[in-house]
Amino acid sequence: MTPEFRRDPLHHTWVVFAPKRQRRPQDFGPAVLQAGHIDPFAAGNERLTPREIFAIRDDHTRPNEPGWRVRVVPNRYPAMEIEGPLVGNPALGLYDHLSGIGAHEVVIETPDGDRALEDLPVPAIAEVLASWRERINDLDRDLRFQHIYVFKNVGPAAGASLAHAHSQIVALPIIPPLVEGKLIRARQHFEQKQRSLFSDILHTEREDGSRLVAENDSFFLFCPYASRFPFELAIFPKRHHPDYASCAAPELHDLAEVLRFALERLNDILDKPGYNLLLHTAPLRRRATERFASSRDDYCWHVEITPRFNSLAGFEVGLGSYINTVFPEEAARYLRGEAKT
Amino acid sequence: MTPEFRRDPLHHTWVVFAPKRQRRPQDFGPAVLQAGHIDPFAAGNERLTPREIFAIRDDHTRPNEPGWRVRVVPNRYPAMEIEGPLVGNPALGLYDHLSGIGAHEVVIETPDGDRALEDLPVPAIAEVLASWRERINDLDRDLRFQHIYVFKNVGPAAGASLAHAHSQIVALPIIPPLVEGKLIRARQHFEQKQRSLFSDILHTEREDGSRLVAENDSFFLFCPYASRFPFELAIFPKRHHPDYASCAAPELHDLAEVLRFALERLNDILDKPGYNLLLHTAPLRRRATERFASSRDDYCWHVEITPRFNSLAGFEVGLGSYINTVFPEEAARYLRGEAKT
Repeated sequence: MTPEFRRDPLHHTWVVFAPKRQRRPQDFGPAVLQAGHIDPFAAGNERLTPREIFAIRDDHTRPNEPGWRVRVVPNRYPAMEIEGPLVGNPALGLYDHLSGIGAHEVVIETPDGDRALEDLPVPAIAEVLASWRERINDLDRDLRFQHIYVFKNVGPAAGASLAHAHSQIVALPIIPPLVEGKLIRARQHFEQKQRSLFSDILHTEREDGSRLVAENDSFFLFCPYASRFPFELAIFPKRHHPDYASCAAPELHDLAEVLRFALERLNDILDKPGYNLLLHTAPLRRRATERFASSRDDYCWHVEITPRFNSLAGFEVGLGSYINTVFPEEAARYLRGEAKT
Repeated sequence: MTPEFRRDPLHHTWVVFAPKRQRRPQDFGPAVLQAGHIDPFAAGNERLTPREIFAIRDDHTRPNEPGWRVRVVPNRYPAMEIEGPLVGNPALGLYDHLSGIGAHEVVIETPDGDRALEDLPVPAIAEVLASWRERINDLDRDLRFQHIYVFKNVGPAAGASLAHAHSQIVALPIIPPLVEGKLIRARQHFEQKQRSLFSDILHTEREDGSRLVAENDSFFLFCPYASRFPFELAIFPKRHHPDYASCAAPELHDLAEVLRFALERLNDILDKPGYNLLLHTAPLRRRATERFASSRDDYCWHVEITPRFNSLAGFEVGLGSYINTVFPEEAARYLRGEAKT
């Protein structure tokens, strides 16, 4: 069976059916890269991954050999298939479907399996962030895709299956529901106020101050007013732009700095929690023009960091609401160092 | 700090801030009922829970003493507070908030800590289902609430913190986003087709047959077309009604039967997986009239069962989309007994 996107009219969310991530019929969880004694992402083990798509390397080193500092490879257990035409929506009555076309790549953030992203020096983190940008720019050329999303799962509670520091990039032929919601609300806000929703949130947080954690030349780091998770963090750029890929080197340096600070503070306070890092950038300009032409420009790329302590349970899965035990004002006091655990 | 509902304009989901579930500042996960050697939900340990709100008991037994078959008590670590006025929406600029008023109850499904819900005979399961109905009818009288939701978390992957068979009931002063979405789509479908979305889904599934698992006089059991989780199941009533509380004894008996069958099949095939059981009923008639008067009647109560094998990761948390490794047609073949693990 080949991968497929499906949507029903009741839940109205796109589900990716990825039968190839299931190795045997009785394995109903996701594929887990079995590290065993061997780390497939470590320098020297390049043969254990699919061939690299992109890398930042030392001079005079060759692809798929050591000498890289950041390395991007196809996911060995991809949720979607990169080859093939995008076939959409034959009549299936109530239901929508689409061939399971998409990119699913892994960004290996360091050759050293013992270092977390935040253990790297700021210039090395900036190279990871630049790799995300390069891959987004390359995937943007593929007219089958509507949206690109970069995320990072760290620790089992956050859904990670391998410890070696890595992030994932997916390019999708659909606009996922939470992205569509944010685009619509950014557009509605602009229509009502003639102001950016993102700038208004930043202004509110700067004025209030109780949830602000840090800032540098290019970014604000704060705990969102309606944080879904304890110690959730958001990073908003000071320069309003829909596309993460618009960031030049100085901004990526500043983002690396604020990201490193945020992750180090979480590690200090919460003893290395699992977390997701979510990079939200606007849907692709070429494909999205018709439907999201105006809302796209009202949208601003941003980063979310969601510490994960527990499985999402029936409350969250069924309602789309969250229960959080820590107010963001309290979390910000800890993160600013004003309160001690 | 007292509980509070908050919503921001970007994510636009209600978050319940429940600081009392956090016992000490350094405990950032949810409160876990520490069973230790003692099961607070077992017969004879009634003093270890708050006083009962409702019970189905043997004749001549007294409240908060043994002799009950189903027992409903307030959650010891409630996400919301039952006492107090509902104070809403003072001006906070961009942000919405509401006092954290709500009910959070625990339904202890059996006095025997070693039995799962599906281990009980059908009449005993029907008593659990009748207890849900009784509590919904009672909470419906409280005009502060807009929506009542019953759910069950089984196993750590599904967010359960205690092994003794139990479900939870929450009464909320808000309509959660996934519920609002379903209501809106049921309404839109009716406006376009003059037919019920739920009846149309049932008709489609009956005609197609490939995802159908079982039926009895009152219910259909099937794997939804866009199942979010491997082996996800839905139970739709044959009689279209917005309110679960409209079910009379024969329907509750039939629901107990189909529920027991579904959970036993999942246990056989997947070796007792963790799961969530989600009971979706329409928002309360009295409160919801203004906004959802018409969509309420287009909505039909239903049950979802979501086996849970993994933490939801960055893909799901950030996009609201899901990756599923098992097509529902394949899951249905296993559940009907046509394929073997």
